[in-house]
Amino acid sequence: MKDVTAVQDLTAKTTSSRVSDTSVSRRFLKPFAGESLSPPPMWLMRQAGRYLPEYRATRKEAGSFLDLCYNPKLAAEVTLQPIRRYGFDASILFSDILVVPDALGQRVTFAEGEGPRLQPIREVAGLARLSLSNAGEKFAIVWETVARLRQDLPKDTALIGFCGAPWTVATYMVEGQGSSDQGEARGWAYRDPAGFAQLIDILTDASIAYLPGQIKAGADVIQIFDSWAGSLAENQFQQWVVLPTARIVAALKAAHPEVPIIGFPKGAAAQLQHFVAGTNVDGVSCDTSCPLGVMQAVAARGTVAQGNLDPLLLVAGGAALDRRVDEILDAMTGKRFIFNLGHGIVPETPPEHVAQLVNRVRRNG
Amino acid sequence: MKDVTAVQDLTAKTTSSRVSDTSVSRRFLKPFAGESLSPPPMWLMRQAGRYLPEYRATRKEAGSFLDLCYNPKLAAEVTLQPIRRYGFDASILFSDILVVPDALGQRVTFAEGEGPRLQPIREVAGLARLSLSNAGEKFAIVWETVARLRQDLPKDTALIGFCGAPWTVATYMVEGQGSSDQGEARGWAYRDPAGFAQLIDILTDASIAYLPGQIKAGADVIQIFDSWAGSLAENQFQQWVVLPTARIVAALKAAHPEVPIIGFPKGAAAQLQHFVAGTNVDGVSCDTSCPLGVMQAVAARGTVAQGNLDPLLLVAGGAALDRRVDEILDAMTGKRFIFNLGHGIVPETPPEHVAQLVNRVRRNG
Repeated sequence: MKDVTAVQDLTAKTTSSRVSDTSVSRRFLKPFAGESLSPPPMWLMRQAGRYLPEYRATRKEAGSFLDLCYNPKLAAEVTLQPIRRYGFDASILFSDILVVPDALGQRVTFAEGEGPRLQPIREVAGLARLSLSNAGEKFAIVWETVARLRQDLPKDTALIGFCGAPWTVATYMVEGQGSSDQGEARGWAYRDPAGFAQLIDILTDASIAYLPGQIKAGADVIQIFDSWAGSLAENQFQQWVVLPTARIVAALKAAHPEVPIIGFPKGAAAQLQHFVAGTNVDGVSCDTSCPLGVMQAVAARGTVAQGNLDPLLLVAGGAALDRRVDEILDAMTGKRFIFNLGHGIVPETPPEHVAQLVNRVRRNG
Repeated sequence: MKDVTAVQDLTAKTTSSRVSDTSVSRRFLKPFAGESLSPPPMWLMRQAGRYLPEYRATRKEAGSFLDLCYNPKLAAEVTLQPIRRYGFDASILFSDILVVPDALGQRVTFAEGEGPRLQPIREVAGLARLSLSNAGEKFAIVWETVARLRQDLPKDTALIGFCGAPWTVATYMVEGQGSSDQGEARGWAYRDPAGFAQLIDILTDASIAYLPGQIKAGADVIQIFDSWAGSLAENQFQQWVVLPTARIVAALKAAHPEVPIIGFPKGAAAQLQHFVAGTNVDGVSCDTSCPLGVMQAVAARGTVAQGNLDPLLLVAGGAALDRRVDEILDAMTGKRFIFNLGHGIVPETPPEHVAQLVNRVRRNG
């Protein structure tokens, strides 16, 4: 509790630009109030990234990937780049889900062209390396980025803050890197559920300390990324995905009931209704494999559905891209819907295909 | 067509032991006839494998992994090993899904401790390397393994033949190895659907040439493994998973209507009913992330549901293993159900945990 209070004190010091613009009615937020828009609001996961030449230039200036995440001026700049090009309805804070373990004391590095690297924590003794009391300094850098963005973004552009869900962040902390089946984390969870629960609790507490600072600095919406939710058995999904996410949502709702929260339990389309009911999120991001019928069912029950174009179709472009965009729009017209990809934009994506997509959604949506 | 005929001629030469034992009533087959058994029939994916010391000994004798697949005596021996230890209701032919591209002319190697390696085929011109006309020789080696097994297996043990589904086999052929997102294959399918369809057609034809030989040699059941079905968008799932699988099922049903076919579209729990309806399979294998409610729904509609214990829980063992086994049994009692894992046994699995599992299913099922 002391840790959390220390972080909250830091939150208070972050410039808040929230109050000044609550009167602005951003169209991105309307589906959360029950409105269905034509065309639907849209943004794209990883819309700020390597596919954009201006991103690559800024990235070179910044140094390492994490240097960029911890540089409010440059992180704000790359966040704004896709907004300038495409005028998306929402921007998303440029950062990384591994800022949280890094801030907790498990240093994270990104080798060029490879994924993240961490010194793995594979048993409960390793948790002693983590401390929330020192995390606030790094969190505050991210909050400063958010505050800058709220000043610099067009007034009608929503700003999405985010974190990784405890389960997904834990998989990286336990594996020490990305993995194909999250076997080390799943194995620990079976072998020593009480010990693994301590790690999940630390990450849940850290998220509850981290996200309100993003909201106070100006985030309109929060998205919780659970990229590896799909690797879990049903009972483990309940324990490590639904319950920790529910705790984060409850804490945010208690302090900021007006801020919509989007969950993204990737690979768990068969459990989407259960996830929504169990976590109380306001929206769910649907991955590419999620059937449109599932998205329709989610939206019909009053939850915003977001998704789910295949990022690889955006690489391919052409008439097939247009056709699939139209199929998604046809299925979701008149529903609580936000157009997005099913996963992040890949670096090989031609920027002109993104322009094609944006035009198509705006014209046919 | 000429290719297929050549392969079928070879099939006829394979010793057939099928006729001699059709009178035996194997309990594994009863759920396909609408019976629910207590305890349910059980087998485990990859039940013959590295977790068993006797497998490791035989493997050393054989040479490379593919050498073992192409050695009927030793392949039959490793198939029998888990039957001797645990008395499963079904054995599964020891082989690999990549026998098919290897037989078609795209040579496959397995580096020790790594996955398969193939010279990738990434455009339609590369398909010229493939030919079904020479495939029969390698197929016939596998058929000989099946015929040996049918002679050597206990009479009441069912024998499962198998192949990889065209989509999943194609991903390895296009990537040249395993991959986390099947991006190369998915990209080709978007970029050049007509060209990619040629590859899928070659694999579908090859499967239709390959599987009847397994049946004629003595396989009671066929399982079609589609390990990467879950990476596809809904419309791509229909095109590359459902339709090719349906064509294989139709061809097998035309010649061997009595042989049940199990599909395994891994990672596609949200599309399981659609998969069943579209392919006409008799059973579906359900991965670990598939909710028990989905398995119940599948079984309630007259399809056999197979699954879905987490292989990592089998590594962990203990009371948690017993509890989850009981949950699965409770959910599936009285249904058309086969107990299995959600994915293959991993090498770290203690053989005594498998014994614990078998005892639990037999006692509480």
